[in-house]
Amino acid sequence: MSEELASGPKERPPALRAGPREVWKKGGRLLSVLLAVNVLLLACTLVSGGAFNKVAVYDTDVFALLTTMMLLASLWILFYVLRTARCPGAVPYLDAHAGPIWLRGGLVLFGTCTLVMDVFKTGYYSSFFECQSAIKILHPLIQAVFVILQTYFLWVSAKDCVHVHLDLTRFGLMFTLTTNLAIWMAAVVDESVHQAHSYGSSHGNTSYTRLAPDLERVGDTACSCSTPVCQIFQQGYFYLYPFNIEYSLFASTMLYVMWKNVGRLLAAPQGHGHGHGPSRVSLFRETFFAGPILGLLLFVVGLAVFIIYEVQVSGEGGRTQQALVTYYSFNIVCLGLMTLVSLSGSVIYRFDRRAMDHHKNPTRTLDVALLMGAALGQYAISYYSIVAVVAGTPRDLLAGLNLAHALLMVAQHTFQNVFIIESLHRGPPGAEPPHTPPKEPCQGLTFANLDALHALPGCPPTPSLANPSPAGPPEVVAMILAPRGHWRRRCLRDISLFLLLCNVILWIMPAFGARPHFSNTVEVDFYGYSLWAAIVNICLPFGIFYRMHAVSSLLEVYVLS
Amino acid sequence: MSEELASGPKERPPALRAGPREVWKKGGRLLSVLLAVNVLLLACTLVSGGAFNKVAVYDTDVFALLTTMMLLASLWILFYVLRTARCPGAVPYLDAHAGPIWLRGGLVLFGTCTLVMDVFKTGYYSSFFECQSAIKILHPLIQAVFVILQTYFLWVSAKDCVHVHLDLTRFGLMFTLTTNLAIWMAAVVDESVHQAHSYGSSHGNTSYTRLAPDLERVGDTACSCSTPVCQIFQQGYFYLYPFNIEYSLFASTMLYVMWKNVGRLLAAPQGHGHGHGPSRVSLFRETFFAGPILGLLLFVVGLAVFIIYEVQVSGEGGRTQQALVTYYSFNIVCLGLMTLVSLSGSVIYRFDRRAMDHHKNPTRTLDVALLMGAALGQYAISYYSIVAVVAGTPRDLLAGLNLAHALLMVAQHTFQNVFIIESLHRGPPGAEPPHTPPKEPCQGLTFANLDALHALPGCPPTPSLANPSPAGPPEVVAMILAPRGHWRRRCLRDISLFLLLCNVILWIMPAFGARPHFSNTVEVDFYGYSLWAAIVNICLPFGIFYRMHAVSSLLEVYVLS
Repeated sequence: MSEELASGPKERPPALRAGPREVWKKGGRLLSVLLAVNVLLLACTLVSGGAFNKVAVYDTDVFALLTTMMLLASLWILFYVLRTARCPGAVPYLDAHAGPIWLRGGLVLFGTCTLVMDVFKTGYYSSFFECQSAIKILHPLIQAVFVILQTYFLWVSAKDCVHVHLDLTRFGLMFTLTTNLAIWMAAVVDESVHQAHSYGSSHGNTSYTRLAPDLERVGDTACSCSTPVCQIFQQGYFYLYPFNIEYSLFASTMLYVMWKNVGRLLAAPQGHGHGHGPSRVSLFRETFFAGPILGLLLFVVGLAVFIIYEVQVSGEGGRTQQALVTYYSFNIVCLGLMTLVSLSGSVIYRFDRRAMDHHKNPTRTLDVALLMGAALGQYAISYYSIVAVVAGTPRDLLAGLNLAHALLMVAQHTFQNVFIIESLHRGPPGAEPPHTPPKEPCQGLTFANLDALHALPGCPPTPSLANPSPAGPPEVVAMILAPRGHWRRRCLRDISLFLLLCNVILWIMPAFGARPHFSNTVEVDFYGYSLWAAIVNICLPFGIFYRMHAVSSLLEVYVLS
Repeated sequence: MSEELASGPKERPPALRAGPREVWKKGGRLLSVLLAVNVLLLACTLVSGGAFNKVAVYDTDVFALLTTMMLLASLWILFYVLRTARCPGAVPYLDAHAGPIWLRGGLVLFGTCTLVMDVFKTGYYSSFFECQSAIKILHPLIQAVFVILQTYFLWVSAKDCVHVHLDLTRFGLMFTLTTNLAIWMAAVVDESVHQAHSYGSSHGNTSYTRLAPDLERVGDTACSCSTPVCQIFQQGYFYLYPFNIEYSLFASTMLYVMWKNVGRLLAAPQGHGHGHGPSRVSLFRETFFAGPILGLLLFVVGLAVFIIYEVQVSGEGGRTQQALVTYYSFNIVCLGLMTLVSLSGSVIYRFDRRAMDHHKNPTRTLDVALLMGAALGQYAISYYSIVAVVAGTPRDLLAGLNLAHALLMVAQHTFQNVFIIESLHRGPPGAEPPHTPPKEPCQGLTFANLDALHALPGCPPTPSLANPSPAGPPEVVAMILAPRGHWRRRCLRDISLFLLLCNVILWIMPAFGARPHFSNTVEVDFYGYSLWAAIVNICLPFGIFYRMHAVSSLLEVYVLS
């Protein structure tokens, strides 16, 4: 964030220009970031303090903080929707790249799941109403209101480049972003505590005294969750946590892009821009069918492996060893195929002389940063595994599988990132003159990739359409129009669909509770339970987010290629 | 880093342009970042594993990894100095903002201290030569060679914009950067372990079993450090660690800027640029003397307080309480003054209508990012302290002082960052036509701030000099030339000198071992020793680096204002 702060308003020509207006613009950005950092650190302190039994910070403190933050953020959202957005000239420009349809669709989907989770939570805490603090029941209700408001707000306003109430909007956006990140942190910590609890109870391990569940905080036996309905509520809301986590992260990325767009000047004013963005491009495109079929096959097999793994690990028979061998074998095959496919995608790009898009695009910049940053979580887990296996003593089949799995995980993340980032930079060339809107059948394509012109019937490759930049060298246009690029585009679509389906199954497994990191004893023995639990519980949420984010990026790659 | 990756080569106009050359340029950046991330995570795993006694990673493994990395980086540096830099047309441009004289001077200073530390380390490990692994003596020797080579390399090449061997140079720079960060991590971990060891031995505490010193690893009693010479070596090299840490960070920032500059195109070619950058601007400028005098006073008092604190805490008499009251009182006064002074600096800027500089400047972007990022360390410690004091039980004088100290620390970091970042953006306007070099007495000023013209005699404010941008509006130039800005510049210089001296004393205290975080029992009792030690040991190095970095930024502000 701060890196972007320094680069300042790039839309204006860098000239010698003074004025208190401009000074305060930069000041507003800086101060809103500082506010966000401070609020976030306070939330981080309370959330992490609340996770430890020994520390005298209770979960009611955390709930109170989160509820207050959500209330304040909701008030600002109401103000924005009712006042700011209705000012004359408030939103003179729309950012075509911000808030694509799959991001907003995902937001609604995960928001709905969060609402269900809130119902379950309310039910769970209402089961022992008499001995609970009121804030525990108030919290899911306020969260439901906040989620509904925020989803509506982001659905209608994600593309806005606001030009009134600049500083208030910056502060409001940053505060709402901070609220989402605080909710994310609280959910991740709560889930980790729950995992540690179930690990402790299933292994009879007493060494995990540091990460004790908040469920035990209630103290009295009269307040325990004993009725069947309450048990269902409790199980249900823990299974819905992954969706809540993704919802917060999706909302955060959209809010960040909106914050970057406050006060931004764009070339095309709002009136001309209808059907901006590739959202109207058909999702069903020509492929070789190999990618989706192989991907679906892996998806189904993966689901079966996951269910078998869960049954065998949670069962009493001590078949953990067998479950781990199955789990690792499937993952090694899947990761190996994904690595090869990503590599072949990069090789195809080496022969593809399509134009690169170097336009300023906050959405893409953020996408790339998130892909690279979120991959660090899985990288870290993999390197700790590699060191543990290489330096550890038992050199059996399971250690070998674990090592291969960790190495392939590193390779897969690396090559997939290279492929996705290169694909995103082959995005739509935005250099079209906005005064020449194309004819009706090709309307949705104006901002999509030029290469896609051949894929749809009814779009003759007329030079006026295919040469959007008057300065473009003619040989480039000739290359783009040449039909030999066709099989490459099909290949790229197959590749992106295959990777997408694989990422979905690799998201489902850890998000719904598969923890081979703890079933496997190599790392736990090598690092000790508390250190290894800290590593996994900090890094794995990033790894899970990476899968989710890769899915949305690959969907974009598929639509654009 | 990844955020910048996506923005790509901004120097070229964003047009429809294809070609494998450009594709590979981005690929080179991406792949070199991926290499760095992977090597760094491997180093991080080994270093953190080596810090724990229970984990079967030994410090010899860490030393072997670091030695190998330093050897490889040295080889690349030799290749660069002997081959790449001597290619015809290898360095067509120099970045005037990169590697200013205070950064290079600091690098040489800290490099010299690191060499002394290496001598001490060699002496220490030679004292029990027979029962040591050879790598422990080899490591400081290789490090000395590496430091000499790297300091020479950065001194002569920090400004280079390399245009041959692009990918090899990117990989080499990233690998050298990674090596420095790995050395930094190892030094920080080693120092934390040492601190925990001395805390454990002075408090007779047995609960710190997790962070056990590597000194004990030797095992045999025959190998213990018992001779007086060996004791001196051991004491000495621990006191020199802060310099080694700062050396690694300084080198890392300079290498990062060089990496950003690989393949960069600038307007002014190398031949014309002599005396680039404000390095020749005189350090001795007109001030009101209030800032330096008050700053020096606080510096001397601070040194006295630090020595008293160290004597009282390490003494046997149990006068820790008294020492803490003195320490906190001094810090509260110092931080309060700094907050007020930073605020008044920002207020002065509100009335100052000088031009803002929006040019692309990787050095400044990095400076801002580092200031904001490094402040997070001290922010986190402060928020944990605040929560502990507010929620904790003993509400005595010490708790009040601790709370005031933590709150002022947050305020001081915030307002100082706002002041410094705004000052850096009032930097030199780089829009001078390079074809009109000024006359001799004003030569060094071409890239310094225009406002500084009045401060030096012999520089008449001729319009040809003072109006570097032909497009600059005349009223701006008139404002700059008006004499009423004079007292403001003097004030700003006073402010920056005062803040500089305060930051130096606030750097010395924690860097040389003052740990009120552990002498004070509030947080240790609230969070438990292991959690609080983890928080402090992870965050404090960033806090110390922040002070160092603020000093170099304030020096720049002083010279430019």
